[in-house]
Order: sequence, then structure tokens, then C-alpha cells
Amino acid sequence: MSLISLFINAGLSVGGAVICYRLILDYIPIFIARKMYGNDQCKVSNAPVPEPMGVICAAVYLIVMFIFIPIPFLEWIGNETETFPYAKLLAILSGLISISTAILLGFADDMLDLRWRHKLLFPTLSSLPLLMVYYVSGNSTTVIVPTIVRHLFQPIVLLPVTINISFIYYIFMGMVIVFCTNAINILAGVNGLESGQSLVISASVSLFNVVQLIRLDSENTTGFWHHSISLYFLLPFTACTAVLFFFNKYPSRVFVGDTFCYWSGMTLAVVSILGHFSKTLMLFFIPQTINFLYSIPQLFHFIPCPRHRLPKYDPKTDTVSMSKAEFKKSELKTLGKLFMTACRTIGMLHVEEFEKDGELYYCINNLTIINLVLKFGGPMHESTLNSVLMAIQVSGTVIAFFIRFYLASLFYDVVE
Amino acid sequence: MSLISLFINAGLSVGGAVICYRLILDYIPIFIARKMYGNDQCKVSNAPVPEPMGVICAAVYLIVMFIFIPIPFLEWIGNETETFPYAKLLAILSGLISISTAILLGFADDMLDLRWRHKLLFPTLSSLPLLMVYYVSGNSTTVIVPTIVRHLFQPIVLLPVTINISFIYYIFMGMVIVFCTNAINILAGVNGLESGQSLVISASVSLFNVVQLIRLDSENTTGFWHHSISLYFLLPFTACTAVLFFFNKYPSRVFVGDTFCYWSGMTLAVVSILGHFSKTLMLFFIPQTINFLYSIPQLFHFIPCPRHRLPKYDPKTDTVSMSKAEFKKSELKTLGKLFMTACRTIGMLHVEEFEKDGELYYCINNLTIINLVLKFGGPMHESTLNSVLMAIQVSGTVIAFFIRFYLASLFYDVVE
Repeated sequence: MSLISLFINAGLSVGGAVICYRLILDYIPIFIARKMYGNDQCKVSNAPVPEPMGVICAAVYLIVMFIFIPIPFLEWIGNETETFPYAKLLAILSGLISISTAILLGFADDMLDLRWRHKLLFPTLSSLPLLMVYYVSGNSTTVIVPTIVRHLFQPIVLLPVTINISFIYYIFMGMVIVFCTNAINILAGVNGLESGQSLVISASVSLFNVVQLIRLDSENTTGFWHHSISLYFLLPFTACTAVLFFFNKYPSRVFVGDTFCYWSGMTLAVVSILGHFSKTLMLFFIPQTINFLYSIPQLFHFIPCPRHRLPKYDPKTDTVSMSKAEFKKSELKTLGKLFMTACRTIGMLHVEEFEKDGELYYCINNLTIINLVLKFGGPMHESTLNSVLMAIQVSGTVIAFFIRFYLASLFYDVVE
Repeated sequence: MSLISLFINAGLSVGGAVICYRLILDYIPIFIARKMYGNDQCKVSNAPVPEPMGVICAAVYLIVMFIFIPIPFLEWIGNETETFPYAKLLAILSGLISISTAILLGFADDMLDLRWRHKLLFPTLSSLPLLMVYYVSGNSTTVIVPTIVRHLFQPIVLLPVTINISFIYYIFMGMVIVFCTNAINILAGVNGLESGQSLVISASVSLFNVVQLIRLDSENTTGFWHHSISLYFLLPFTACTAVLFFFNKYPSRVFVGDTFCYWSGMTLAVVSILGHFSKTLMLFFIPQTINFLYSIPQLFHFIPCPRHRLPKYDPKTDTVSMSKAEFKKSELKTLGKLFMTACRTIGMLHVEEFEKDGELYYCINNLTIINLVLKFGGPMHESTLNSVLMAIQVSGTVIAFFIRFYLASLFYDVVE
């Protein structure tokens, strides 16, 4: 039955993709007429690009999910002998609540430029139903202790194979949600980047689920459900995102907007929680994690941060190069200095020093991995830049699979 | 426990109202800066009025609900002896999904002017989870047969006291949802009207629930739950809407937008379905139902319909009067003629006839109860008009209570 549901889900996903394609074409002129567009800062022409087109795909996604929801439960409908699997339906509905409110938040942000504190609070609260359902469904909050750690501690204390970290696990899941909903938004600004990275991650996570389904014991119905429910959410997302990428890739005919970034991040986070692989999900977010860590000094203003950190466009050569931030040495805080010294030493930062009006100035590349690619690769065409970033994302996937399926077996006796 | 939950819900509602008040003040300049405003067509000044402010209140509403959700279930948390009431949590979550997608739809409509078919399709589909949960929770689809009908049919056939109308009941509930999400949107355009009517209805339905709770047998835990869950959704809604009305009443400092109309309609529909009083809810929508029936000829174009049907403003007297639609007699369809003749006969239509270029023209009032009030009452100040409409809405409530608690007992042996 679960397999049939998966096939129906895949069919609906294809249908959703077709509808996305038509609706995007349909709504491009409407967006322009309503003045909902952005201007591409890395192009010679200043033609308006409709934004946020992600809301159209997100709406189609929700519709596909609404139509799909009853499918996995058909065998119980009209069947009075077996009790209805309430916990499973609860899992799906709680996931959908988080996703639909993330879409609403993203769309509101696109339209209103919400304040930061509201943007952080809303996804945290909207994930409460999800975490509550996780709790009442009696889901595990135990983590497996790596074999090596147990060996190390053996002379002192005999560690158990698993430890129940209880509420810390909920805090971790909450952080996964907040991180994911913002991570894609931070790594953005190049044609096709937001949709492309999401597409790579969702395709990778889908593949991961399929691999797990194949490896599973036929007895393990719980595991089967976890990876099925992930795919129920992921396949329509991957399909809708693929269409969006088609329009968003260089040269962008549409921009995806914050709507897409929140939708995408929340969907991936939800899937990992419902599928019980939130730790594994983080492996697929390695490029985003590096970008986030590298961005911290500017995000938290240890180092001055300009309004935009997009690459700089040179219309003469039709290439983009790294954008820079210029500031007085005296503006730099202690943590900023530490970070600069460390990054400079390992060659991860472009630094120029000069004097003006008797004061020492620094000029460094803006702290995103996009600018880091341009530091090492030099000026390049925007589509090349996006290809390099996609290649990094795909390498991330390869590393994730390597860690999850090879390294993990070295560190853990038991792998779920 | 349920009572404590109700008090906590009421407390959170008050908190929500305070936050709404602050956020509206906070976001008024942001809406203006982002060019999200409308112009009040019934004012001398053409100052921009922020729109759709409903989205701010709706977001606060969702947050209040997210915080509240765990409360009614606290007694089961950590209690392993009793099974968790999954069906109850499912009911709340499915209601929230419908509401949050209605908010998203409304906001998208405000920003994009969605096509009609998309606007009808989306709420229908987003209510699927709600109806599915209704189904799997084994909820009743029986209706009580009026005593008088049974007596009439007695010589021919012995009708049962209740009839299970099965899937027809689901179609009815689906229609309630589509009707409610659009009914408030159709009766709109006067300062304070959208928020005012919703406030009257939600306060009335809340009162109805309280009355039912008081009348209930202490044994009737199901009934207790139905009216409690209604109040869980209604109290925060009433509180947030009251604040919105404060800003939206004459002279409007904010407009509520389609966002509010969809949110409001969906919330009331959801509440009636979860509380098992969808037929009773229709009684509270009497003014909206009359407005809808009266509007049908223009909505379905039996009679030509101008772009706007708002009352006409006269800056000299600072009053509004009925707006009119002018069209050739030859443009009128058969159904339109029938309607005009019928309404004219009973004095429910203002009709002028005149000739231009040898053709006969009609000029009639636009078909809304707003214009009907102005036909009977003559030109009046906009705030007076809204007060009259509010009075009509309150009378509707009185009639609803009369029908529900007095007339129904004459027609039905058993009243739920």
C-alpha cells in the first residue's frame, strides 16, 4: 500500500510540475502589472523580473499535498476492524501547518520586509505543533553514543549504547527548523542559486530516503513509514522546484523571493523531523553551514556589513567579481579582528589596507561563499559562478552520503 | 480541565489583542512605505490607507493558536495510563491548516488579484484535511427530521427520527466553507463593515457556544468538547478582530483587505464544522445570505455589473448614496428581466428608465444590501450607514437565537 501511495504521490508531483509551469507563465504579466518585481543587478538591461514567483509554486505544492493526504489512509477508510493510524495523519498535518505558515511568513516578508525578530519568532512558534506531535506520538529522543567515545570513557565510566537526551533533542529540532528556514535565504543572490541549491538538496534527500527504503528490513514498518512520509513531502517539492529552477536559472525570467527560501527550508526541516533524520539532514546542508559560519562576523556585526553582499557586476566583460566591504580599522571589534587574522592566515580572506585622512582602512571581500568562490576563481560569468556553486552543493551531497553510509558505520555499532 | 483551558485561551486572546494593537501601529508606516495601501473613495482627502492590515492580525492569531495548542492536552502529557486523544488534536490541526491557507490565499489575492477560479478552488481543496478528519473521527452525518415532516409523511411512510445523509453532509460542509470565505468579501466597502460584521458574528457564535456549554448535561463530554474547541478558535479571533475594528471603523485608519475576509470566513466555517453546528452558523449569516442572493444577478451577469458597487460619495454633504448601474434594455438577459420585475413589484429595487439615441436604458441601484439600505434610508453619513448595517447584523443574531432556541424546539423533538 505504501508503495502504491508513493507512485500516486509521484504522479501528482508530475501533475503539479505541469501546473506550476503553466501558472508561472500565466502570472508573469500579472506580477509585472502589480509592480511585484525586482531588478537584476548583474545584467546590462534593467528589465523587471517578477518576484516572488515562489508563492505560485508553493500554492501548487499545497494543493498537491491536500489532494494527496487521503491516499495513504484509503485502506483504513470504511475499514472498522483496524484502528485508524491517527498518529500518522497527525504527523502529516503538523508538517503541513509548519510549511504553510512558513510560506505565509515568506510572502509577508517579500511584501513587507519584516523585522528580524518577527522573522525568527514566527517559524519557531509555527513548528510547535510539529514538535508536539513528535512528542505525543512517543517518538524517540535517544541518540546513539559513538563507539569510540564509549571506548575512551570505558576506564572512567561505562557509557550506554544510547542516551536519551530528552528535551535537548527538542531544542535541537527547533534549531534545525530555524537554521533551515534561514540558511537558503542567506546563500542567495545569483541567478538560479536559491532554487538550484534547494533542488540539489531535495533530490539528494529523496535519494537518501529511497536508499534507506531499499536497505530496510521488511519487518521494519516504522522505518518504512518514516522514509515514505519524507518522500510524500519531498517529491512534490522537488517537482515544483525543478520547474521554478527552469525559470530562475541564468538568465532569470523570475525571482523566487523569500517565500521560496522559507518554504524550501521549512519543507526540508519538516521532512527530516518526520523522517527521523534531522542529524543526517545537516550533512546535506554543509555548504549552507559553511556559508553561515563564514557570514557570522557580518551578520552579527563584528565586522561592518554593507546593505548588499551580492557579487559586483562588470558590464564591460559581462562577468561578476567579489564585492567588498570597506571600513576603518577603528570600527573593528575584537571578535572581528580575531576572525580576520584567522581567515587571513589560512588564505580564506581577501584583505586590502590603505590610509585615508590619516586613518587606516580595511577593504575585505564580503563574507559569503559566493564571494569566496570569486576570490579563488577570479571574475567569471554569472552562469559559471552558479555552476561552480551547484558543483559545491553536489560535492556536499557526495560527502554527506560518504559520512552517513561509510564513516558512520566506523563510529557507530548501530546505525538506524 | 476544559474550563481552565478556556480561561488560558481567553488570557492569550487578550494578550493577542494587545500585540495586534502595537503591531498595527508599528506596521502602518511600513505598509505606506511599501506602497501597500488603498485610497478611501468616500472621503474628501485622498490620503493612503494601509491595506491589507488583516494579515498582521491573522499572523498574531496564528501565533496565539500555536502557543495555545498544547494547553488542552497537558493532562495527557507524561500520563502513560490513558491513551492520548489523537482525534482532538487532529481536529485542531486540521482546522488550523484550513485557516492558515485561507490567510495565505487572501494575502495573495490582495497582492495579485487572483483569478476567480483559483479563488474558488483553493479553499475547497484546503478544507479537504478538515473534512477528512471529520470523517475518520467517526463524526455524525445524520440530520434530525422535523416532527412536522414526520407527521405529514406518517400516512404514507414512517420516517425515522434521524436520517444519515452521509456524503451529502460533506458536500454541505464544503459549501459552507466556500460560502463563508466569500460571503464577507461580498458585503464590503464601507468603513468598518468587514471587521464589524465579523466581530458581531464571532461574538454571537461565541455567546451561542457559551449558552450551549451552560445548557449541557455534565455527562455530555462530546458536546462539551465541541463547544470548547469552537471557543478555542473563536476567542482569539474575536479579540484580534476587535482591535482591527478599532482601526478600521469610520474614519478608517487601516483597511482589512481580502486577507481578513478569507481568514474571518474560514475561521467561522471551521469552528462550525468542528463544533457540529454548521446549520446553526448559517442563521448568523442571514444578512450575508440575503446580500448574496440579492447580488446573484450581478455576480453571475444576468444583469450588467459595473467594476465597483460601492456607495457613491457626495463631498458637498459628506454623505453616501446608492450607486447605480446603467445599461441598455437589450443587454438584459431573461433571468435578469424576471429578477427586475419581481424585485420592483415588492419595492426592493430602484429603477429609472430613459431613452438615449432611440434605445431604452435602465438605471438601477447596484445589488447589495448596502445600496438597499441607502435606497430606503436616503443619503446618509458613512458612519451612520455602517451603524445601520451593524444593527441589521445584530438583528440577525437575535433572529438566529430565536430560531435556534425557540422555533427549533417546535419543529424538532430532539435538539442537539
